[in-house]
Amino acid sequence: MNGRVDRLRGSLEEPLLVSAPANVRYLTGFVSSNAAVLVEPDRVRLFTDFRYAEAARAVEGVEVELLKRNLYGSLAELLSGRIGFETSGLTYASWATLTAGGAELVPRPGLVEALRAVKDESELRAIRAAAGITNRVYDALWKEQFVGRSERDVAWRIEVLFHELGAEGVSFPPVVAAGPNGAKPHADPGETPIGPGQTVVVDAGCIVDGYCSDCTRTFATEPLPDELARAYEVCLAAQEEALAAVRTGERGEDVDGVARRRIDGAGFGEAFGHGLGHGIGLLVHEAPRLAPDSGDVLATGNVVTVEPGIYVSGLGGIRIEDLVVVGDDGPEVLTSFPKELTTVH
Amino acid sequence: MNGRVDRLRGSLEEPLLVSAPANVRYLTGFVSSNAAVLVEPDRVRLFTDFRYAEAARAVEGVEVELLKRNLYGSLAELLSGRIGFETSGLTYASWATLTAGGAELVPRPGLVEALRAVKDESELRAIRAAAGITNRVYDALWKEQFVGRSERDVAWRIEVLFHELGAEGVSFPPVVAAGPNGAKPHADPGETPIGPGQTVVVDAGCIVDGYCSDCTRTFATEPLPDELARAYEVCLAAQEEALAAVRTGERGEDVDGVARRRIDGAGFGEAFGHGLGHGIGLLVHEAPRLAPDSGDVLATGNVVTVEPGIYVSGLGGIRIEDLVVVGDDGPEVLTSFPKELTTVH
Repeated sequence: MNGRVDRLRGSLEEPLLVSAPANVRYLTGFVSSNAAVLVEPDRVRLFTDFRYAEAARAVEGVEVELLKRNLYGSLAELLSGRIGFETSGLTYASWATLTAGGAELVPRPGLVEALRAVKDESELRAIRAAAGITNRVYDALWKEQFVGRSERDVAWRIEVLFHELGAEGVSFPPVVAAGPNGAKPHADPGETPIGPGQTVVVDAGCIVDGYCSDCTRTFATEPLPDELARAYEVCLAAQEEALAAVRTGERGEDVDGVARRRIDGAGFGEAFGHGLGHGIGLLVHEAPRLAPDSGDVLATGNVVTVEPGIYVSGLGGIRIEDLVVVGDDGPEVLTSFPKELTTVH
Repeated sequence: MNGRVDRLRGSLEEPLLVSAPANVRYLTGFVSSNAAVLVEPDRVRLFTDFRYAEAARAVEGVEVELLKRNLYGSLAELLSGRIGFETSGLTYASWATLTAGGAELVPRPGLVEALRAVKDESELRAIRAAAGITNRVYDALWKEQFVGRSERDVAWRIEVLFHELGAEGVSFPPVVAAGPNGAKPHADPGETPIGPGQTVVVDAGCIVDGYCSDCTRTFATEPLPDELARAYEVCLAAQEEALAAVRTGERGEDVDGVARRRIDGAGFGEAFGHGLGHGIGLLVHEAPRLAPDSGDVLATGNVVTVEPGIYVSGLGGIRIEDLVVVGDDGPEVLTSFPKELTTVH
């Protein structure tokens, strides 16, 4: 924990006010919806309100100061001198409140996020555990009946399996998207029964020790329309080619391009409208990004998803997603469920 | 839906860029983690990315424009003239991105939030339904064994009950806080078995049609220490007195003061460190607030919680929370579970 603060200090030109909850947690272990940390050369101050007082006092290596519920109103009076702040961790309103006080605020985007992008061994342990539970959920799920059940029922079953296997919770509400609903990359599970001849996109992950997993597989009920069967083969080829390109030093943009060229070449380019993947850790979306406009370069210890998708409006969707640790010699793939098209009944 | 946009237009001096997801949902019905709405005198434009394209096209009365994943980068190029923005709905980073574009940005805090604070009949229907399910969960829960089970097990049981009774999900992760853990108002459920002679704070709510409920009851396992039994009586008296003060035209600060004076007078003032209550709707915390520093005045159709708490470090906590609709003649109480101290085994 102190190692993290020390590494952060190495990149600071002035004290940094850390506001994003995941960054506060990363530096101090403290979990709260209303907290901020001021990292100075010789001390770390943790600000929160009464509701979190007992938990804050248990945090080692910080000086705890209880403020009013509106932390930034209190901090505006408390802070002075040059103070760096997190541009994505503060609302405009909080920034304006702080600015009215005595401190000179300096925007310092992404400093803790850059540290968080490279996972240490304890973080990798948690992510591998979360991925392992997720693998077991998929192993159990595909043997169950799909046709006739609602997406919502299957999504709840996934939540139950995660709980039974010891996850702290889900890393996001499970996506179960059958037939035309699968053409929405971020579909909400509905009440319509899953029918024959459909793809069923299942995107789910869980949390262990605060760290997220993420996995997508697309199942099929028979008989699958030819266009979706072909799209599946294209998506799978794109996924495997991109996966093979994941390696320390590669650019996120280039890895995305590997999958995108394959999907474009098969005539599905318009149907792959999102990025190839994202980093994952305390948050389910964090640095680095694999996308056409990503400026990120992959580093050893990044944990990213590789998840091309093909979405055919009115018909169905396909997405295949692995979770991987980036290494010098290629990826360590944490997702074990087979990627060949699996038929469910 | 259009009525909401029309009412908003009545308070606008220039087009308003609506960014907060709950505000986007309130105005358009569109649910997305990445969307913005520009309300102009003669049209409503809905901006989102590819992942939400299909869902966006189903929204009535809006012009849909698909932008890049970084919406505000695209909007900086697209917008011009004077544009109001939501100060709590934008991060500093998004605001800075927008500011670099051609528009002249005007801070307009809380306009949609002010509309959302007064619920219409369809919203009240959803909240009453969520509260009704919550009542049934508490009715079922107190009959179960508590002693020997972990807080985490009871919390999961609550999630299962909500699902079985038809809720869309929980409005927040259920709090089950026994013994010393109950002295943390926002405790995470742990693995320690619930023991004899403890208070058990259970704070839970669910979602129906997007709207939240919220309820807290504090149970007791026998034999309860005298100090906690006394604190319970004080907390209950404070809750009932404050509840009786909830009425259209009352100030949030004054209603809070009713409970706070009672708790102060009994010598527990330091142990009640949070506000008395909060509005609830699409979000579990929204306007108006009942708190010492609240400037809000209660209006007919507000839905608020009334939830004093007494937290005794090292020993236990007590919180009693009702959910109520504010009316001219007093509150409509949506929480039906008894408030007398209920013993569980």
